[in-house]
Amino acid sequence: MTETPVTGLDELSATDRTRHRRLREKGRTDRAALHEVLSAGFVCHLGVLTGGVPMVVPTVYGFDTDHIYVHGSAASRSLTPPDTVCVTVTHVDGLVLARSVFEHGVNYRSAMVYGVPRSLRGDEKLTALRILTEHAAPGQWDYARKPSRKELAATTILAISLAEASVKVSSGPPDDGDGPDAALGLWAGVLPLATTWLPPIPDPLLPEGITPPTHITVRAGKQLS
Amino acid sequence: MTETPVTGLDELSATDRTRHRRLREKGRTDRAALHEVLSAGFVCHLGVLTGGVPMVVPTVYGFDTDHIYVHGSAASRSLTPPDTVCVTVTHVDGLVLARSVFEHGVNYRSAMVYGVPRSLRGDEKLTALRILTEHAAPGQWDYARKPSRKELAATTILAISLAEASVKVSSGPPDDGDGPDAALGLWAGVLPLATTWLPPIPDPLLPEGITPPTHITVRAGKQLS
Repeated sequence: MTETPVTGLDELSATDRTRHRRLREKGRTDRAALHEVLSAGFVCHLGVLTGGVPMVVPTVYGFDTDHIYVHGSAASRSLTPPDTVCVTVTHVDGLVLARSVFEHGVNYRSAMVYGVPRSLRGDEKLTALRILTEHAAPGQWDYARKPSRKELAATTILAISLAEASVKVSSGPPDDGDGPDAALGLWAGVLPLATTWLPPIPDPLLPEGITPPTHITVRAGKQLS
Repeated sequence: MTETPVTGLDELSATDRTRHRRLREKGRTDRAALHEVLSAGFVCHLGVLTGGVPMVVPTVYGFDTDHIYVHGSAASRSLTPPDTVCVTVTHVDGLVLARSVFEHGVNYRSAMVYGVPRSLRGDEKLTALRILTEHAAPGQWDYARKPSRKELAATTILAISLAEASVKVSSGPPDDGDGPDAALGLWAGVLPLATTWLPPIPDPLLPEGITPPTHITVRAGKQLS
């Protein structure tokens, strides 16, 4: 697998928590790489402390230049400000099948963000919800009915700064192609995974004649990340 | 979306941490549902406490009837026994596109396991590594070179009991098909996501004439989960 070395303190802060220590892991600390990983998905895993124990919940996110916004309802009962949370976004790109079991691995792209979440209110919350909605479902903010005041009040959106973040990318073939195990004569390579949008399935309660808008149909057949 | 109610204390322990509190979330506490979710993937998100802060790392897992086994190298530097960890496995099945932004959501299957990890040694570690390898890459344990004593020593495998676990499944169309928003005349439904294995890519260093074994090629075109 390609080893991208830790590039140092480019733009993102590499604290003790986000500095990469493992040799086989590849760290990329620049902001473009972070935005690339965040662009490629819409579900993150949010780690919060609850009764002294970490709880990891999947939730939807969006982001802009400086913040990641997560739908915080699942975690809000456990959040005790100013507790730090960890948001991890992972894309699994394939299995690395090596000549030895030991060299097997996963090709992936992953971003990890640490920060103290701020629960948004008012216009800030509405803006963040639009960013999050448009990130997961582009075109739907203008197409669907926008949230009422009551619905907005019932929604928890957390903003977490992207200042303390790291990115790890693992790609390419297994590492043992030029080692002694090459002599075993075994097949080795990568079994890639692709996550693809399928054609939209209409709600069974939808009346006849309502067709899906283009901003939805264009996604069918496209890869998520 | 289909709301599967909490089925109660079937076989799995529903502690305060794993009991579902949100109305829209669907809890399934039986062991078959748990095994179903764990079967459908091979990368989990492991939450560990590090300096009083939760850290969420993606890692490979396998499981048997009573335990989930996770590759613990990424987390091992932070683990302080007997700290409890949280292992979450999530499959994203699609986007729920409703008539209102508020009713938008994600169809997913997710399992959450809490437990005190045990770092395995000797035969137990070898057995767990076989389970984990065969879960991610079926057929490779017998095909590839098995780990040497030194390689095994350099591998951290954590075992976590499945006794305290919960499953949430969200599926089906949006909820607002029979509410007042139906009169808006907007399209609504689900945009499904499929994660599929692609044909294997040989290591560029592989000599001519070594073809991939059937246990690898049969996966191409199949859905992961």
